Amino acid sequence: MPLVTIKIIEGRTKEQKRGLAKDVTGAIAKNIGCPDSAVTIDIVEMKPENVSQGGILFSDKPPM
Amino acid sequence: MPLVTIKIIEGRTKEQKRGLAKDVTGAIAKNIGCPDSAVTIDIVEMKPENVSQGGILFSDKPPM
Amino acid sequence: MPLVTIKIIEGRTKEQKRGLAKDVTGAIAKNIGCPDSAVTIDIVEMKPENVSQGGILFSDKPPM
Amino acid sequence: MPLVTIKIIEGRTKEQKRGLAKDVTGAIAKNIGCPDSAVTIDIVEMKPENVSQGGILFSDKPPM
Amino acid sequence: MPLVTIKIIEGRTKEQKRGLAKDVTGAIAKNIGCPDSAVTIDIVEMKPENVSQGGILFSDKPPM
Amino acid sequence: MPLVTIKIIEGRTKEQKRGLAKDVTGAIAKNIGCPDSAVTIDIVEMKPENVSQGGILFSDKPPM
Repeated sequence: MPLVTIKIIEGRTKEQKRGLAKDVTGAIAKNIGCPDSAVTIDIVEMKPENVSQGGILFSDKPPM
Repeated sequence: MPLVTIKIIEGRTKEQKRGLAKDVTGAIAKNIGCPDSAVTIDIVEMKPENVSQGGILFSDKPPM
Repeated sequence: MPLVTIKIIEGRTKEQKRGLAKDVTGAIAKNIGCPDSAVTIDIVEMKPENVSQGGILFSDKPPM
Repeated sequence: MPLVTIKIIEGRTKEQKRGLAKDVTGAIAKNIGCPDSAVTIDIVEMKPENVSQGGILFSDKPPM
Repeated sequence: MPLVTIKIIEGRTKEQKRGLAKDVTGAIAKNIGCPDSAVTIDIVEMKPENVSQGGILFSDKPPM
Repeated sequence: MPLVTIKIIEGRTKEQKRGLAKDVTGAIAKNIGCPDSAVTIDIVEMKPENVSQGGILFSDKPPM
């Protein structure tokens, strides 16, 4: 504990995940007052056809 | 918010996911009294060998 | 299966939850092609101070 | 999206949660390259008797 | 890792949770081949009015 | 109910998952006092580059 789950759209680089793990861990440890080693993070990568906002799949939305 | 996670066995078509996103969003907006745009859904597809009921993997069950 | 988790801000009536369970189950069964009895839903009620959007807790946002 | 769930032991102040929401959102936006507004966080507070490590409930562990 | 989440209807004793943590940890360590210390479990207690099967809230079902 | 989610690093055999499903179901049924048939388990397999402990991705850690 803390246990963190981050759901993102697939396609990030390993470098991005590395930065994500490092910086989110730091942000949690700082605010909770726990050591970095207590923080576990798992990243769940979602396909755009498996996520919707407002009832519309991300894969059906025009690119922003 | 609301945030919805739907775990299903893999293998649905994109058309099924499209209907799922639309209809579940509508059902939630109607009952919660929020706009459709507030509803986020993520669909998690599971392999039959990664789900069990009664201690038996779905991949080991006879087809129904 | 399907397994559904719905996270909402706390404070809905039991009547709203009853409608939510009925209508979301129907929306899933229709689109997945499974019987209603296969659909399990759990509703997670969140305090406004435990949810944020854009880095701001819901409890700190002006009422919409 | 991104959607973030943070499970922590109960008992943090609202000020700690405020900092958590702000800093974790910033860490994700920076590394994923999305606007802060795209990041939703929910904090789940756990009782020590509902979490275990190594088969022992946190409520049964000597304080560290 | 492994990380385990167990959702149950509320009302179990601390003794039941203690046994649950111990025995589930053992079952996972045995089958995955990891030490007990690697297994984190969190127990989520649900109110009967927040769970449905077949579109009917547990709180609306006749007792079994 | 009970609903169980087990997150593990990818790469277990079907035989390991079979044992996991059987033994975790038994451990829960025994301690909760429910029939095996009430227990649903889903196994989520994680890539080492999608999990971190202490801010370091599993894929970046030296093998233990």
